[in-house]
Amino acid sequence: MNIRLYNIKLMSMNEGTEIIPNGEIWVEGNRIAYSGSGCHAPVRGMPVWDREIDGQGNLVMPGFKNAHTHSAMTFLRSFADDLPLLDWLEKQIFPMEAKLKEEDIYYLSKLGVMEYLTSGITANFDMYFYPKQIAKASADCGFRTVIAGTLNNFTSSLEKEEENFVELNHFHPLIHYCLGFHAEYTTSRELLAGLSRLAEKYKAPVFSHNSETRSEVRQCLERNKTTPTVFMEELGLFEYGGGGYHCVYMSPEDLRIFRRRNLWAVTNPGSNTKLASGIAPVKEMMELGINLALGTDGPSSNNCLDMFREMYLTAGLAKLREKDAAAVDADAVLRMACTGGAQAMGLYESDSLEKGKLADLIMVDLHQPNMQPENNLSRNLVYSGSKQNIKLTMVNGNILYEDGSFYIGEEPEYIYRKANEIINRCKK
Amino acid sequence: MNIRLYNIKLMSMNEGTEIIPNGEIWVEGNRIAYSGSGCHAPVRGMPVWDREIDGQGNLVMPGFKNAHTHSAMTFLRSFADDLPLLDWLEKQIFPMEAKLKEEDIYYLSKLGVMEYLTSGITANFDMYFYPKQIAKASADCGFRTVIAGTLNNFTSSLEKEEENFVELNHFHPLIHYCLGFHAEYTTSRELLAGLSRLAEKYKAPVFSHNSETRSEVRQCLERNKTTPTVFMEELGLFEYGGGGYHCVYMSPEDLRIFRRRNLWAVTNPGSNTKLASGIAPVKEMMELGINLALGTDGPSSNNCLDMFREMYLTAGLAKLREKDAAAVDADAVLRMACTGGAQAMGLYESDSLEKGKLADLIMVDLHQPNMQPENNLSRNLVYSGSKQNIKLTMVNGNILYEDGSFYIGEEPEYIYRKANEIINRCKK
Repeated sequence: MNIRLYNIKLMSMNEGTEIIPNGEIWVEGNRIAYSGSGCHAPVRGMPVWDREIDGQGNLVMPGFKNAHTHSAMTFLRSFADDLPLLDWLEKQIFPMEAKLKEEDIYYLSKLGVMEYLTSGITANFDMYFYPKQIAKASADCGFRTVIAGTLNNFTSSLEKEEENFVELNHFHPLIHYCLGFHAEYTTSRELLAGLSRLAEKYKAPVFSHNSETRSEVRQCLERNKTTPTVFMEELGLFEYGGGGYHCVYMSPEDLRIFRRRNLWAVTNPGSNTKLASGIAPVKEMMELGINLALGTDGPSSNNCLDMFREMYLTAGLAKLREKDAAAVDADAVLRMACTGGAQAMGLYESDSLEKGKLADLIMVDLHQPNMQPENNLSRNLVYSGSKQNIKLTMVNGNILYEDGSFYIGEEPEYIYRKANEIINRCKK
Repeated sequence: MNIRLYNIKLMSMNEGTEIIPNGEIWVEGNRIAYSGSGCHAPVRGMPVWDREIDGQGNLVMPGFKNAHTHSAMTFLRSFADDLPLLDWLEKQIFPMEAKLKEEDIYYLSKLGVMEYLTSGITANFDMYFYPKQIAKASADCGFRTVIAGTLNNFTSSLEKEEENFVELNHFHPLIHYCLGFHAEYTTSRELLAGLSRLAEKYKAPVFSHNSETRSEVRQCLERNKTTPTVFMEELGLFEYGGGGYHCVYMSPEDLRIFRRRNLWAVTNPGSNTKLASGIAPVKEMMELGINLALGTDGPSSNNCLDMFREMYLTAGLAKLREKDAAAVDADAVLRMACTGGAQAMGLYESDSLEKGKLADLIMVDLHQPNMQPENNLSRNLVYSGSKQNIKLTMVNGNILYEDGSFYIGEEPEYIYRKANEIINRCKK
């Protein structure tokens, strides 16, 4: 499909968050063929259009990237909340997860993808059991997913991790697989040493949960005499980059490792708030030049998959933590949500709307009261934006969501019914 | 108009947050004529319907009440953000407000009302200059507003406050006026003593900003040797009830006064977060039995007028503050947002969907990925709900917002243009 989006405000994010007030985008197949000022007459080299969309002055920008999530946990949304952390995890979440069947993951992941689309998210960094089902669900929807490995002592092995890495990186152009492990506290030193060898073999980055809670760090110190980050560094896991999810309790040495290794800290403020885990040192990490991206975490801890919430919280909680209303501004947060997330996931072709890049973009409805007046669109997005402003979500040149309708090859009601059936079966 | 809503999930909030799975509501004129189980055949006494709406299994519940806001500050949305508090207020906000003309308030308030409708808010507790323009804007939209007085040393007088009280309580059935003053730090002891006499004369409650920041409380202690709450109590301002907006820094004595006087603490977590003011002791106030309601505060400090954000933050920030994921649950927050807000504002006829009450209600779209599966609708609303779920907002029996369209007697684009013109004029 060749699609022309004209009469738009264009925030291409090639450099920063500047806006071309009367902009235009050409999508040829799955790539951006033009991105810039509006063309008021037919131009030499302009493709034949399958569709021309009058943007009516709305904003077009790169899609948000959800850089940490567990999509298939949709079945546990609102199932167990307002509980102490350990009760939540051990008495409610783990026993229900044990009842999941492999094919459940397919529909539960699709439900996650649907919610991503409503929030202007064009790619996710997913982490859950049965990665082949995740891959199939995303590919079938036309959605872009990077799957992080979940290596751990209970449900996986190094052989499986390598098989997933090789197989899923050749499965479909929309799917990538990144080496990963669940967390230091669930993965033995031997497995992690093995993962280091895989990272070396494939010259690949490694991601995992890292320093999400105070007790996690304390227990690691007791076990290993080092913080999780230092432990991972000493095992050689970061020779080819990577990063950590959450990164709430970081020592100065941890931060130096992140900086020196050019690692990504993926912050998850919605989940860290609801689970009472704490507030990540986002301002400090920014000032140290550490790479930052945003993620929703899974829908059983957040409970929604909404980058508008995460953006507001990233800025807001930094202000609360620092007792400084000037800490972490809207433009910085917007870069984390779009460019940062893409780069964290290795999606360097989805990080801006520059000519030649992949057409992963969104149109934001400015004809809504929460987007008016138009004093500053970055701030409107971060501080008053909402899912209701997402008019169109395009992934890889295909419109998957527009004006409230989904174009993902399956009826929404069928996916909702499946999700309800799965949780009802698990409850028995 | 007589409107029948059938095939709905009904959360009437007569008692708590229980749901009638196959419910029905009859609206006759501006009141609820029936609220309960679905009627599968015509029933004796059923009115002649102007409209019958198939709710398709969606949720109908009382509208949210925004119990503290400054609607007309819409013009300053995204105008000044990410600044230290005093720079924001004194260098950016005050000089721009000084440039406002009386008629500006009319359009800026209407822009606020539009956003309330998109967020399922059916009444607001507004506080700003030119209350007659606020009243006219709301009445013209068909929206319900309680205006709190802004008595202060600079822009008002006791005579004006009494005139507003008398006049605006007789202006229109949708409009009420509540005695109020801006804050202890902007209002002299003499004016407050006078306001106490007005409260006595009219047997009326009094509201104001109260203990929003640490420095406000410290300065009051220096000036008066008491906290703001004790100062107000000693002046007799709470003889007929009332309450405070924000209530972030409350002493044990302050809390005892709130409890003894049955006052309302209106929490504003979005604003307190973005301005780095702090986290209110919501769990402690709940446990003490203090009445609680939620407000967005104004759009220059929040920056949106979204009760979904406030509900999430009320629960989430309480968990962070208490370091306890079990602190303040979804049902409690939902009651604050609906029933609590209504009662704080004196709108005892808008606090539930019981037969005979005013028809101030919303329909929440459950056919959206963020509302699935339906494990627990209260938690879905509080933890994953979003403006995009508001399918219909009815105030006083009239549908003012439905499926993204506004029915407020004026074109949205005209209001947007006015708001942009006003801020652009003020910027000159």
